[in-house]
Amino acid sequence: MKQLTYGMVGGGPGAFIGDAHRKAVSLDRSADLVAGCFSSDPEKSKQQGKNLGIDPERCYANYLEMAEKESQREDGIDFVVIVTPNNTHYEIAKKFLESGINVSCDKPVVTDLEQARDLQETAREHDCLFMVTYTYTGHLTAKYIRELIRTGEIGEVRTVMAEYPQGWLYNENDCGGKQGAWRCDPKQSGRVNCLGDLGTHVENIVSMMTGLKIKKLLAKLDVVVPGRVLDDNDQVLVEYESGATGIYWTSQFAIGCDNSLRIRIFGSKGTISWFQEEPEQIILIREDGIQQVIKRGYGVIPEQVAKYGRLPAGHTEGWIEAMGNLYDNFTDCLQAKKEGKFNPSMIDFQTIDAGVEGLEFIEACLESNVNGNKWVTL
Amino acid sequence: MKQLTYGMVGGGPGAFIGDAHRKAVSLDRSADLVAGCFSSDPEKSKQQGKNLGIDPERCYANYLEMAEKESQREDGIDFVVIVTPNNTHYEIAKKFLESGINVSCDKPVVTDLEQARDLQETAREHDCLFMVTYTYTGHLTAKYIRELIRTGEIGEVRTVMAEYPQGWLYNENDCGGKQGAWRCDPKQSGRVNCLGDLGTHVENIVSMMTGLKIKKLLAKLDVVVPGRVLDDNDQVLVEYESGATGIYWTSQFAIGCDNSLRIRIFGSKGTISWFQEEPEQIILIREDGIQQVIKRGYGVIPEQVAKYGRLPAGHTEGWIEAMGNLYDNFTDCLQAKKEGKFNPSMIDFQTIDAGVEGLEFIEACLESNVNGNKWVTL
Amino acid sequence: MKQLTYGMVGGGPGAFIGDAHRKAVSLDRSADLVAGCFSSDPEKSKQQGKNLGIDPERCYANYLEMAEKESQREDGIDFVVIVTPNNTHYEIAKKFLESGINVSCDKPVVTDLEQARDLQETAREHDCLFMVTYTYTGHLTAKYIRELIRTGEIGEVRTVMAEYPQGWLYNENDCGGKQGAWRCDPKQSGRVNCLGDLGTHVENIVSMMTGLKIKKLLAKLDVVVPGRVLDDNDQVLVEYESGATGIYWTSQFAIGCDNSLRIRIFGSKGTISWFQEEPEQIILIREDGIQQVIKRGYGVIPEQVAKYGRLPAGHTEGWIEAMGNLYDNFTDCLQAKKEGKFNPSMIDFQTIDAGVEGLEFIEACLESNVNGNKWVTL
Amino acid sequence: MKQLTYGMVGGGPGAFIGDAHRKAVSLDRSADLVAGCFSSDPEKSKQQGKNLGIDPERCYANYLEMAEKESQREDGIDFVVIVTPNNTHYEIAKKFLESGINVSCDKPVVTDLEQARDLQETAREHDCLFMVTYTYTGHLTAKYIRELIRTGEIGEVRTVMAEYPQGWLYNENDCGGKQGAWRCDPKQSGRVNCLGDLGTHVENIVSMMTGLKIKKLLAKLDVVVPGRVLDDNDQVLVEYESGATGIYWTSQFAIGCDNSLRIRIFGSKGTISWFQEEPEQIILIREDGIQQVIKRGYGVIPEQVAKYGRLPAGHTEGWIEAMGNLYDNFTDCLQAKKEGKFNPSMIDFQTIDAGVEGLEFIEACLESNVNGNKWVTL
Repeated sequence: MKQLTYGMVGGGPGAFIGDAHRKAVSLDRSADLVAGCFSSDPEKSKQQGKNLGIDPERCYANYLEMAEKESQREDGIDFVVIVTPNNTHYEIAKKFLESGINVSCDKPVVTDLEQARDLQETAREHDCLFMVTYTYTGHLTAKYIRELIRTGEIGEVRTVMAEYPQGWLYNENDCGGKQGAWRCDPKQSGRVNCLGDLGTHVENIVSMMTGLKIKKLLAKLDVVVPGRVLDDNDQVLVEYESGATGIYWTSQFAIGCDNSLRIRIFGSKGTISWFQEEPEQIILIREDGIQQVIKRGYGVIPEQVAKYGRLPAGHTEGWIEAMGNLYDNFTDCLQAKKEGKFNPSMIDFQTIDAGVEGLEFIEACLESNVNGNKWVTL
Repeated sequence: MKQLTYGMVGGGPGAFIGDAHRKAVSLDRSADLVAGCFSSDPEKSKQQGKNLGIDPERCYANYLEMAEKESQREDGIDFVVIVTPNNTHYEIAKKFLESGINVSCDKPVVTDLEQARDLQETAREHDCLFMVTYTYTGHLTAKYIRELIRTGEIGEVRTVMAEYPQGWLYNENDCGGKQGAWRCDPKQSGRVNCLGDLGTHVENIVSMMTGLKIKKLLAKLDVVVPGRVLDDNDQVLVEYESGATGIYWTSQFAIGCDNSLRIRIFGSKGTISWFQEEPEQIILIREDGIQQVIKRGYGVIPEQVAKYGRLPAGHTEGWIEAMGNLYDNFTDCLQAKKEGKFNPSMIDFQTIDAGVEGLEFIEACLESNVNGNKWVTL
Repeated sequence: MKQLTYGMVGGGPGAFIGDAHRKAVSLDRSADLVAGCFSSDPEKSKQQGKNLGIDPERCYANYLEMAEKESQREDGIDFVVIVTPNNTHYEIAKKFLESGINVSCDKPVVTDLEQARDLQETAREHDCLFMVTYTYTGHLTAKYIRELIRTGEIGEVRTVMAEYPQGWLYNENDCGGKQGAWRCDPKQSGRVNCLGDLGTHVENIVSMMTGLKIKKLLAKLDVVVPGRVLDDNDQVLVEYESGATGIYWTSQFAIGCDNSLRIRIFGSKGTISWFQEEPEQIILIREDGIQQVIKRGYGVIPEQVAKYGRLPAGHTEGWIEAMGNLYDNFTDCLQAKKEGKFNPSMIDFQTIDAGVEGLEFIEACLESNVNGNKWVTL
Repeated sequence: MKQLTYGMVGGGPGAFIGDAHRKAVSLDRSADLVAGCFSSDPEKSKQQGKNLGIDPERCYANYLEMAEKESQREDGIDFVVIVTPNNTHYEIAKKFLESGINVSCDKPVVTDLEQARDLQETAREHDCLFMVTYTYTGHLTAKYIRELIRTGEIGEVRTVMAEYPQGWLYNENDCGGKQGAWRCDPKQSGRVNCLGDLGTHVENIVSMMTGLKIKKLLAKLDVVVPGRVLDDNDQVLVEYESGATGIYWTSQFAIGCDNSLRIRIFGSKGTISWFQEEPEQIILIREDGIQQVIKRGYGVIPEQVAKYGRLPAGHTEGWIEAMGNLYDNFTDCLQAKKEGKFNPSMIDFQTIDAGVEGLEFIEACLESNVNGNKWVTL
């Protein structure tokens, strides 16, 4: 049994993502929420703390105070979850790391490559674990795909088709409410919108599944819906170090696409297909061409992957379980660290290293785009 | 914010269903687990209590003691969750009701119609709420179907095709491990296996979705896999009071069917189709024949149904969320009751009345089967 | 190269099924159409003959004349295709058989068991081949399923779920135009509508795929849509000689079901699923639970089945090809017969024997239904 | 009734595509095959003519003789079907056009843009109709999509995702038999393989469905499978004159993809999705996000499109019917021309103009690819 506590920065009333992180942590009782700074408005923060049953003393007016006080308490939080807009991640994460507190931060981890590298360095210096919550890597099926590819089941990867279209911002008269407002606002979201929100997921999960490293890329970032300032449709050609190629497409105006992250990996001996909206299955095709639909719960899935399931096959698990899997492993590592038993091979979550790669990807795309869609080497 | 506590009977280490109930309750912080009698083995019960962070004083050696002590405490539990084998539900539920404690009990609620009626009466006498956890009725989509039919979207129902095949007990040399052992054992499971485990889900969810009452039925309960004693494949023809008809089929040896509850409802103006393994969508077909795939999160779903969703469309929810919805409404009702604001129209869960209907269904099937598959009037 | 000719009775202007048979025969140049009696109206018949490029001399005013004249010609037709309403099949087929002309006749072959047996006997006496055009048995995938079951790939069949719902007659104010009018009319269709049109397909294709013989059945034939006289929704429980069971369901008011013949066969070692509207694939599930989608054109399909394909995988074939396969084999047999090389093991089409079984099925269903849905032994 | 005859160049024994064209023409009796030059080997040609029942006098040793003799006969062929390898199309088509004979030619029509323009000019001069058999544009559903877009049902097109992967050439030790051999051979196939075989289909059908004209494109043509000389995986970014964008992807090593032409068109008010392997349906999504599956045979399809269907909904049509639709319209036009009633608005097939556009597309892709994947303006 793990005995860990955590605090949250962000996640005030009505904030979808903060609530989702809390549900994911509580699902498997990975840690208890005991502190927080839930809003930049101290009153709202207090109220949310009360709603969540937090000791009022540990509801802080700002994250600086929170980091300081929690790091001084004997029973201080084991980690902080940062679920604020992108442009504030850097300073908050930096402060907690410097206070010796482990960090879980939403993606894209920051808006600037230098910041990402600085956090990477800071985490190392202070011996902190830093998880970037790329939710979809938490799916058991994503981990299974990684195993299949690692063990050569589809031979050498030849090409990757990866896409992540959404449709919720298709309407020029509707910027997507609270969720959309900050994403479409360069001040809060950074230099990119769609690419940061969706493109980094694509870059990350392809990397996680295949182990391929991008050698160079060519990107076209378009602003399509009238009235938008940041990109809402991105096309990226990639070439990996192995010589394999790929196409990444992301969009925010693809009507009918709810959250349609789809990865298809074509190898010399087989093909794997995975769709986030049907996250409990993969399609594996070998040289005979037969589509094999393999689902969570089937005996063919190796134990180190199967252990991430909670329910029997056919009893559907979803997004919260995927996020829960991230926290399950993250807190396993933290507990081991606390007990002096940690070693890095235990890590099965995306770290700040993935965050850095995500920013490298964004920077390269921006550079390619501004230069007339030329190849940029990473 | 609700301020409720609960205890659990059953749900020891390794018990799938008890853990699932706990996850479902904690998902939305519907109530806090504070007491329990988790195993008939007192040592295991204590250990599980410790794992779950329960005050050792409230880890009980047996349910009788638990019911008595909790009913005497000022801060006693608001409700008990019963997740033991079917044959023990009756006496446990009865005891808690008599102690004035509300009950949530897994289905089929008991093994005998008289017991079900007795619990119904006991709950009424002691003014307790009694939820039977028919998980699948918790799906937002199931509730949406009920609304569509209520409001006449598919006209009058003409025929219903409902099935619930599973495959996990197909192998004559493998009785399904711990889960299967008690289900296949007449001593623990009662007079039926497949019909009680799966058939009652079918009977209940069709009733919940359509509002149709069964007038008469004709059943064939077969014992097919060599070595089995109880039914593992059931065919039931039904005729409803409205004159509509239906076929219910359940099986435990249908290889490739994980948990394949599927309901198709054919009306005079349209058809609705729902599949538990893709629980976030319904298929609605109107007179033009066009299949409309409607998913959780879409604007067309009315607010009183849509409120049961937690995540945006495309961020998958599953079985635990469905179960969580049951507890969400159950605890809303309990909180209201505590505050003197309850009224029965708030109930959006399956009560002991549904449990009684389930047993009436089972009894009628047994009678039909033993008499050469003749029609039996309910 | 086959050198065969045929004539047609029925199939006048606007008749869907006659045109479909002609397309199917011409698809593979199985035979040339050289004679006909296309309508009970001599003028229409002549006109259709002209449209089809038939020698006017061989456009007959009635089928009696046609049978007589063609049987006397040296270059007389090798076979006749009968595509008239059900109630006329018997006398027409009988006449051609007595004239020594082979017959292809639409199903249900006749409306009465005695007639079917008489045709069976007459064909035998006159040494004629008699094909009943159960179109769906022509699908390569249906033949593949037969092979899989024959060779034990799914072990012993335990239960069969077979259904054939259509929706085109759902509307009480629309009897389905020309196609529907005769089917709904007892005078032209016989004692059953849905059961004859759809139920016999189900009975036949299950028999063809599995080789199972029905021992007894229990049927409920309902007249549901207001204004109908004959059955439009049929439920049949069957028990095969092997002890396996099945449910057959057919309907004509199932909105959204175009032509939804679906067969699922559950065996002791696997499951096979087939859907007529996706006729180029089967789903095979073995004990590991993995769904295998196997399509026409894949190497795993044995040569004696694969030969029925015309195009590479992914180049879709459909209903006409299925019908074409019937004629391909029928004319192979006729050609062989002509050359004295025929032997019965060459037959891979449904003969009058299947027609007789179809009528036995109908008679048993009628008997069961009229007796309050009791079991009837075949 | 049309009274047309045709001849064929190519389509000898074992040639898949020639046989397919013949089946397509005969399906609806669009024309009669009466002449041919079926093989470069005169013996094989004769034999095939005999198989096909062609008058030996009209089985020619070479296409030059055929063009001359047929153009001199009073009952000479109305059109010729050219189904030889790509590199021979030009001279054959040119000869027949100069002889005043209408042409149907497989795609890509030639291997060189100048040739295409020359044929375009020649057809005009000799007042011949010239059909390029882009099979997939024959699907009723493709025509329906064109109507939906024309009439503004999905608003303005914003981006197009189009792909056509196949898997049959994935194996470095298997070049795809007779079909693959010439496609992989630069001498017979021209400067491109995958792009010519698959990419031109994509370019054409997107153009046909959307009416969009490509302004510029950026292409990456890769040779991936060891031992190949010509491209087998192509990525193309396109920008249309309207400002909309697109990605085209084609591949020949995508294991599990049989013939997976898939088009998704995202507009400002809706999305349309179409998949060639399920050619009888489209998916239409409007602003409410609901997927509408619309199938051939449904009342919502306008008559000028619906007329291309032969069978009721649910009675599957496929590839041959699509090709048949091309010939149906082509021969309607030829018949009208013969009767002096032709006008160009009758044309609903892809003409040599589409062939020219296909070559412009290929040339631009080649230029972009050789220049390091730069944008090329068309």
